[in-house]
Amino acid sequence: MNQDYIKPNGWSVIEEGFDASQVESSESLFSLGNGAMGQRANFEESYSGQTFQGSYIAGVYYPDKTRVGWWKNGYPEYFAKVLNAPNWIGINVTINGEILDINTCTGIKDFRRELNMKEGWLSRSFKATLANGNEVEVKALRFLSLDIDEVGAIKYTVIPLNTDATISFEPYVDGGITNEDSNWDDKFWNINKVSHINDFASIEAHTMKTEFHTCTFMKSQLFIDEKSQDLEFAINQTESKIAYKYQADIKCCQSFTIVKFGGYTSDRNHDKTSLVSDAKSAINQVSDLGFDALLEMQKNAWAKIWEMADITIEGDVEAQQGIRFNIFHLNQTYLGTDPNLNIGPKGFTGEKYGGSTYWDTEAYCIPFYLATKDQEVARNLLTYRYNQLDKAIENAEKLGFSNGAALYPMVTMNGEECHNEWEITFEEIHRNGAIAFAIYNYHRYTGDYSYIPEKGLEVLIGIARFWHQRATFSTYRNKYVILGVTGPNEYENNVNNNFYTNYIAKWCIDYALENIEKIKSEYTSDYTRIMNKVNLESDEIAAMRKVADNMYYPYSEEHKVYLQQDGFLDKELVTVANLDKSQRPINQKWSWDRILRSPYIKQADTLQGFYFFEDNFTTEELERHFDFYEPFTVHESSLSPCVHSIQAAKLGRMEQAYTFYLRTSRLDLDDYNHEVHEGLHITSMAGTWMSIVEGFGGMRVKDNILSFTPHIPEQWKGYSFKVNFRNQIITVKVSQSGTDFEIDGTNNLQILVNGKVLTITPFKAVTV
Amino acid sequence: MNQDYIKPNGWSVIEEGFDASQVESSESLFSLGNGAMGQRANFEESYSGQTFQGSYIAGVYYPDKTRVGWWKNGYPEYFAKVLNAPNWIGINVTINGEILDINTCTGIKDFRRELNMKEGWLSRSFKATLANGNEVEVKALRFLSLDIDEVGAIKYTVIPLNTDATISFEPYVDGGITNEDSNWDDKFWNINKVSHINDFASIEAHTMKTEFHTCTFMKSQLFIDEKSQDLEFAINQTESKIAYKYQADIKCCQSFTIVKFGGYTSDRNHDKTSLVSDAKSAINQVSDLGFDALLEMQKNAWAKIWEMADITIEGDVEAQQGIRFNIFHLNQTYLGTDPNLNIGPKGFTGEKYGGSTYWDTEAYCIPFYLATKDQEVARNLLTYRYNQLDKAIENAEKLGFSNGAALYPMVTMNGEECHNEWEITFEEIHRNGAIAFAIYNYHRYTGDYSYIPEKGLEVLIGIARFWHQRATFSTYRNKYVILGVTGPNEYENNVNNNFYTNYIAKWCIDYALENIEKIKSEYTSDYTRIMNKVNLESDEIAAMRKVADNMYYPYSEEHKVYLQQDGFLDKELVTVANLDKSQRPINQKWSWDRILRSPYIKQADTLQGFYFFEDNFTTEELERHFDFYEPFTVHESSLSPCVHSIQAAKLGRMEQAYTFYLRTSRLDLDDYNHEVHEGLHITSMAGTWMSIVEGFGGMRVKDNILSFTPHIPEQWKGYSFKVNFRNQIITVKVSQSGTDFEIDGTNNLQILVNGKVLTITPFKAVTV
Repeated sequence: MNQDYIKPNGWSVIEEGFDASQVESSESLFSLGNGAMGQRANFEESYSGQTFQGSYIAGVYYPDKTRVGWWKNGYPEYFAKVLNAPNWIGINVTINGEILDINTCTGIKDFRRELNMKEGWLSRSFKATLANGNEVEVKALRFLSLDIDEVGAIKYTVIPLNTDATISFEPYVDGGITNEDSNWDDKFWNINKVSHINDFASIEAHTMKTEFHTCTFMKSQLFIDEKSQDLEFAINQTESKIAYKYQADIKCCQSFTIVKFGGYTSDRNHDKTSLVSDAKSAINQVSDLGFDALLEMQKNAWAKIWEMADITIEGDVEAQQGIRFNIFHLNQTYLGTDPNLNIGPKGFTGEKYGGSTYWDTEAYCIPFYLATKDQEVARNLLTYRYNQLDKAIENAEKLGFSNGAALYPMVTMNGEECHNEWEITFEEIHRNGAIAFAIYNYHRYTGDYSYIPEKGLEVLIGIARFWHQRATFSTYRNKYVILGVTGPNEYENNVNNNFYTNYIAKWCIDYALENIEKIKSEYTSDYTRIMNKVNLESDEIAAMRKVADNMYYPYSEEHKVYLQQDGFLDKELVTVANLDKSQRPINQKWSWDRILRSPYIKQADTLQGFYFFEDNFTTEELERHFDFYEPFTVHESSLSPCVHSIQAAKLGRMEQAYTFYLRTSRLDLDDYNHEVHEGLHITSMAGTWMSIVEGFGGMRVKDNILSFTPHIPEQWKGYSFKVNFRNQIITVKVSQSGTDFEIDGTNNLQILVNGKVLTITPFKAVTV
Repeated sequence: MNQDYIKPNGWSVIEEGFDASQVESSESLFSLGNGAMGQRANFEESYSGQTFQGSYIAGVYYPDKTRVGWWKNGYPEYFAKVLNAPNWIGINVTINGEILDINTCTGIKDFRRELNMKEGWLSRSFKATLANGNEVEVKALRFLSLDIDEVGAIKYTVIPLNTDATISFEPYVDGGITNEDSNWDDKFWNINKVSHINDFASIEAHTMKTEFHTCTFMKSQLFIDEKSQDLEFAINQTESKIAYKYQADIKCCQSFTIVKFGGYTSDRNHDKTSLVSDAKSAINQVSDLGFDALLEMQKNAWAKIWEMADITIEGDVEAQQGIRFNIFHLNQTYLGTDPNLNIGPKGFTGEKYGGSTYWDTEAYCIPFYLATKDQEVARNLLTYRYNQLDKAIENAEKLGFSNGAALYPMVTMNGEECHNEWEITFEEIHRNGAIAFAIYNYHRYTGDYSYIPEKGLEVLIGIARFWHQRATFSTYRNKYVILGVTGPNEYENNVNNNFYTNYIAKWCIDYALENIEKIKSEYTSDYTRIMNKVNLESDEIAAMRKVADNMYYPYSEEHKVYLQQDGFLDKELVTVANLDKSQRPINQKWSWDRILRSPYIKQADTLQGFYFFEDNFTTEELERHFDFYEPFTVHESSLSPCVHSIQAAKLGRMEQAYTFYLRTSRLDLDDYNHEVHEGLHITSMAGTWMSIVEGFGGMRVKDNILSFTPHIPEQWKGYSFKVNFRNQIITVKVSQSGTDFEIDGTNNLQILVNGKVLTITPFKAVTV
């Protein structure tokens, strides 16, 4: 762990002092994104030390040929990779002919990096002594515009401190990039054309196989002591790179500044033939505005995001920094405007995991976006799956299912499965359940039923058909069983009757049938359209109902708990507290068989079911299951602590809830798992948000009414959060002495607080 | 299936007519081996068509870097590959300057290939019309000497049929070879030196990483019309190849013959500095003898093997050919003289599977070698595992076991695990049981107890310790359970309480403890030596005994059968007979999850336990289990039909036993699975032998007495086999009317026939 590296600050992530061993970690932590593109916090100038270069365009991916030791029927041929895109941020700098490179400087002082989350920019400053003895001060400020989301801007200033100096800036665009995680060292990009007109340079390139056409571009402005300069430039061009070299003689302590605008256009949003001209339009728009005006717009845009999404914490600056870091990166990753995009587990901060879409989206991220954005955003996330229904049906067909049964992929970019471990790809089928649950959750939260007749029902039917076909009738038990699955707890593989899976399977069928009935009676034309499309007959419905009504759940009479799966009690039930610390984390210390036969749970599994279907169980049941399973849980998934934090809070165990919260909120900032250099854990950040809002705040929706049971950790003075509930913003401020509720909007709102109805009037805070 | 391709013949495998699409399959079927080396039946002359070149030196392997999609802790870094070795058989031929290449000839007539199993040679003859219009007759005869096992010999004759011709032979040795199944296209061989003295040429080369030093060599003799010629030759030498070119003007219908001797010496048996001189000694020995004398020796050597190992079948030439094909290839693969060698699943006929040692050796091959060789051969196979005990202990340590617990690898070359599928590598642990069982089986058959105090007990203790540590006490069941295993039926993965595994685990502990007691009282000095080495204390023994005495076995009261594993009855129990034929073989048609949740069984699993421990169950129990499990068995492992054939015979179901027998005996000859081009299924060939001797013949050893319950398929007139039992050869001849027993040797022998004692006197046949 690396707990003291990032300076505590409520609104910024701050690094002070240069540490070469931290460069790759900081490149992840200080990443920038605007939903449409993103980049690791790589330096603009040359850096010859260890670095992980990464620049990403949302939705532009490559189907890398699968690598596997032993092929199994049904494995996908390709693994869709998040693709490292051409680099537009680079600026080579020389001082009197000496290359500026922090790695080769003889001295670096006052190195400081700040990711200002409030305003959405990244700054970096340092003083460097070069090998030629020249001392310079460097200041860099960078952001990716939220308003014009194909463009980013860099303001990069060098001040010679002990000499006059001839300084050159060589901004460039470079298409000669690779992916670190390429399976077969294939080439991912083809460069079509490197070109320039006046101060505008561009590289047109397309991805191999997927044929995404992109234009990466740049334009620069030069200043001496803030005064605009019209400098000559030399162009250095190769087959995959173009650089402009600007040079000026700078007096000691004068500042020499380059403002570089750059970014991407792609045929995801543009006509492929107009990528260069559209790039020119975009860059001219921002260069006409100028850096400072664009930065002002950026601050305003982030202010709007924070206005809805901020959570404040009083009395604990690290917790404050942690929660804002999570909210900030979630917003950098996904803003919800494009139904073809989703929330990659590493966002724009690294390559690991590949794909962009996991069940994380439905299980963890949708609540965050539901509460902090307009409902259109969550709807777009649902539509993403609707648009991929055909592929989910194809995917199920590959595994032997038929008649429109849909199995959504474990990992995907375009709807096709791209993961290839049989125990995950073929067996972690509970993912289908979360996708149906998200539809329910969307309707429960927004009250907007229209999505279901419009799109959702087809998805629900495909999923219900899958569960119907996937269940097996056990003559022996006279029940339906689901054999050979991997539950959310991936430390069990190929188990029979995973409680969570069986439960959500039954729920999915019930929910689909319930909605079929409702739409049949209330949305007749939708019903006709859908039934014509899916060919669902009454005998299939009856067969589905039979499966749902006769589902088997493993249960222990002795412990009065549902068993995670058949045979769970056969395990040697030694709790994590009694497991030697030297053995942890078990995923690094133990061979897979040992993990599998142990009782240890990677993340909430049975308890995930209690989280989704809380209302179906009593608090006593929750408590019994929590007390049974949590002691075996090693929380080695970043998605684990949040669910447990919420449930501990519900059980009034605030100390435990707070401990879980800490574990999730600063996971990346404090680099608990020594892996932040690979990128951030974006989807689990939504779990952190849930820990506060659903955990401490106890927010639920019950029968169209927002409900709260506020708790506060004793370590905090107070905290506040806002939620957008059906177009009204409710602010909840919790302190040790009580809770304030306030709404903006025009209508009164009835809410439940600790089970009692409370009516709140716009702009009049009520304290409970 | 390719049932009519190979001509039926009792003693030979015969191919008539040239079919380019069959070349690779025939290369496998006509493979030669002599235990020390082997080779696919590649042509001597150039062949530009599709071919799979393979030449192998026993025990010379390469640790290829593992390829895996998703790494799991405990996976081995390397996969030991059977290594394609330098080629010494090649002879380029030109006729009036035109290269002889069957693929480019304008006509091929009278192509005939014969693998004479009785005498151990391969012949090939054909008439070719070359592109230049020249017609030639070609005759090639080749064998790998059993007597001087580093050498092989080729007699290659060309007769011009329609013209006088200048004919050149260019025999060569070529070190520039690769493995088709290389994971990362690594180079496996380093050439040290290519050299020649007079008519002797050699290539010294060593394998990368493993540093096996080898010398591949050749020497040739030339004849015209059988008369020895002293022809000039030109040498053509590169960095990795050396060729001698001999040329002569041959009149129409004269024969031009080259006799080429070649082979390998390696530092597995020689000093690395004397490989070339030792090669010279070997080749001079054979060239002094001459081709014909060496061939005579070959015939005699094979006659000796057949004298012991032959099985005759009257009235069914295809069955006769099938069983001899199996016996022949087993003997080509492994002759039992070197305790560092083992029986690779593809022998010397291909690269697939890698490694050389699987549990096949102990479970399927040892009975064959016990009965058809001196007992030293089986003892060497046991010693092979004894010599690798340290590696088995290391292997177990990697998986978290301690204190001398040994887990033998699933696949190995030198004792290290080299397989990397977690469900196999980490979980198919029943393999340990077969290794212990083989010790028991050796003692049961030979009566030689000395192996156990000398070596076996240490192995038994390591294995017993493994089972002790691997079992888990289930408080719930108040029994020991074994969680997370893959049984012999690899169509179930990560199951709990596989009956076979639990049963053999208990047996292993019992057997180890029983032998500890015996050795303690009867072999005091061995006992002291072993106990000093293994540090086995009485409390560990007591703990082991507790596990063995309290092992849990899943059992169905309803069906009165042991269940293959927990939860087996949850499956949809549709028998194979009711499975649509279009779905088979399921391993090619179904995704892995579907296979896993199906009831279908790849090979005997519960029934494998009934095979090993037959005496512990009644015939009624066997019948009940056979009737329960066989209907779900798809026999998609080559190791499956034999066990079922034996059990069907025991149950008096001769028709079924015969069907199973057919399935195993001509598996490769008839290429049932369309994969014979990859190589032969060597280890399952021993199962074919078992089907006759243990199945039809009903041979068992009961309390030191050989027992028979002969049956005969109604399709046969008669069959006979011989077994070496404790240094006496018993010949058993079964006909429709009765069975003859005969022994050679000096002592009378009591045997059991159909449960009744029969005393047989040397050389006096007794009919029952």
